[in-house]
Amino acid sequence: MLTIDALQYSRWSREIFRQMRQGGLDCVHVTIAYHETAVETLRRIGEWNRLFEDNGDLIMRVGDARDVHDARQSGRTGIVYGFQNCSPIEDDFSLVEVFHQLGVRFMQLSYNNQSLLATGCYEETDPGITRFGRQVIREMNRVGMVVDMSHSAERSTLEAIELSRRPIAITHANPATFHPALRNKSDRVLKALGDSGGMLGFSLYPHHLKGGSGCSLADFCAMVGRTAELMGVDHIGIGSDLCQDQPDSVVAWMRNGRWSRVTDYGEGSAADAGFPAQPGWFANSTHYGNLAAGLAEAGFSGEEVEKIMGGNWLRFFEETFGPEDGSRA
Amino acid sequence: MLTIDALQYSRWSREIFRQMRQGGLDCVHVTIAYHETAVETLRRIGEWNRLFEDNGDLIMRVGDARDVHDARQSGRTGIVYGFQNCSPIEDDFSLVEVFHQLGVRFMQLSYNNQSLLATGCYEETDPGITRFGRQVIREMNRVGMVVDMSHSAERSTLEAIELSRRPIAITHANPATFHPALRNKSDRVLKALGDSGGMLGFSLYPHHLKGGSGCSLADFCAMVGRTAELMGVDHIGIGSDLCQDQPDSVVAWMRNGRWSRVTDYGEGSAADAGFPAQPGWFANSTHYGNLAAGLAEAGFSGEEVEKIMGGNWLRFFEETFGPEDGSRA
Repeated sequence: MLTIDALQYSRWSREIFRQMRQGGLDCVHVTIAYHETAVETLRRIGEWNRLFEDNGDLIMRVGDARDVHDARQSGRTGIVYGFQNCSPIEDDFSLVEVFHQLGVRFMQLSYNNQSLLATGCYEETDPGITRFGRQVIREMNRVGMVVDMSHSAERSTLEAIELSRRPIAITHANPATFHPALRNKSDRVLKALGDSGGMLGFSLYPHHLKGGSGCSLADFCAMVGRTAELMGVDHIGIGSDLCQDQPDSVVAWMRNGRWSRVTDYGEGSAADAGFPAQPGWFANSTHYGNLAAGLAEAGFSGEEVEKIMGGNWLRFFEETFGPEDGSRA
Repeated sequence: MLTIDALQYSRWSREIFRQMRQGGLDCVHVTIAYHETAVETLRRIGEWNRLFEDNGDLIMRVGDARDVHDARQSGRTGIVYGFQNCSPIEDDFSLVEVFHQLGVRFMQLSYNNQSLLATGCYEETDPGITRFGRQVIREMNRVGMVVDMSHSAERSTLEAIELSRRPIAITHANPATFHPALRNKSDRVLKALGDSGGMLGFSLYPHHLKGGSGCSLADFCAMVGRTAELMGVDHIGIGSDLCQDQPDSVVAWMRNGRWSRVTDYGEGSAADAGFPAQPGWFANSTHYGNLAAGLAEAGFSGEEVEKIMGGNWLRFFEETFGPEDGSRA
């Protein structure tokens, strides 16, 4: 079964790439920047170049849906780059295209906080998409970089759906009705996302799950079922948010970057500051089969399971990764 | 006749691109950085993206010899990116590959001054290629970025020729025996360059010419003849160093960057600080035909003129622009 995960940020290693192969993962959207500046992001790309050099038998760079087929046929996992924040473009719209040239296909307009483009989900007030944000959405549409609102606030997200000429994504989040985290999304957002042709990737990150690390596969899959009814089965997929083998210093960086002297614990707390434990049925990239089995158990047809496990994301990649004018990416 | 110019740094405009088409220029190596940092270089690439958008009927981006054929067949001038200094990679060898991914195919190891990699031609002492320089040459060889020593000093240049596993270039300079500028090259360097399979591009910049702006076409072509005897007719081409329509502030930036509080005049002087006037027979990109005619007049055969006007550079591009292991660029 074609399997695509629309968000991971693991401590990449040959062992993890082997697990991806074992789990039948054909393509994964990997985060290469949280708070990195442009030049720091170039270094992350440099690090990925060395991962490709050293693990060319297990992974390959992916820039479009055709490449995903090539990855699948050659028995490798395709790697798609994305940013969880707009820091890499700094104040320069023209860096959208330059990073697209380097393979970046997703960019979140904000990460928890207010950015130059949009508001993050932990701000108290959301004034919506900024002037610069409108220009950047237009440029992302033009070159084929997907607007991702996973960590953005409600009004900004609704406006991004409205302003974007091409479908957008929430690569990794769940419905707030399932678990009322600020990172999870209202039915209003999810409905607008589905109606506009956009995609939601379901998160397996414990802070986004009912019951956290103890969430059951059956509860997770029942939530997928309710969301399919809300958004349509063609607009949902997996975006696991798996952060495998990362030290807790990394979640501190994700939450605090360079913006706060006082430690921000995000969805955690001082008493529970680190990465939470994954549910046993999705502990690493060997476990995609558990998700497929759970979805079937929850009543999805074989065809629907295939859509959710990867088919929908592949169609979305076909629609969104190329230049708007249809010229060669 | 296939025509390639291995160095220009003009104030790019639709008018200049039209002149390139009128002059039958199939490909030109353009400088995109002198003293730019990594992020400043990304902005230059962003500017070029907009030039391609606005002038797609006249120019196209070129990353290998095959692209040069495509440019020629579609009646456009191919654009190859290069750096005149190593400032864009800052202190990070991994940026060599990242900039190669963005289309950069030439990098000078130093520009007039000592760099982190090599010594420039205006330094008093040349200790040769640095430790970092050896690593960067190796990385450039690996990914397919050409070592260019046009503005480097003698010992560094000889060592670069020796250390590089692939042929290198001096994209724009003349023999010092023709005109004894510090920027021109000794017969020892030119001989070693030719013997190693490298390429020299003859400069039409007046400070590199006998008689400066008043240099005659016949004198220039006689110099090409003597150099062909020294290096072999397969190792020479054009690298005009044409800086058309640039304000004098640009030559001041080229010479001074951010490194000097006191104005450095390079090959000029306080009394002659600006760009010198081009010889009338090579005033702009419509004049490549004059060079071809002058070379024939000087006694080169038709086949030899074709080699010098572009054939040699095309062969060199085929040999040097791809990854060393022969995989897809």
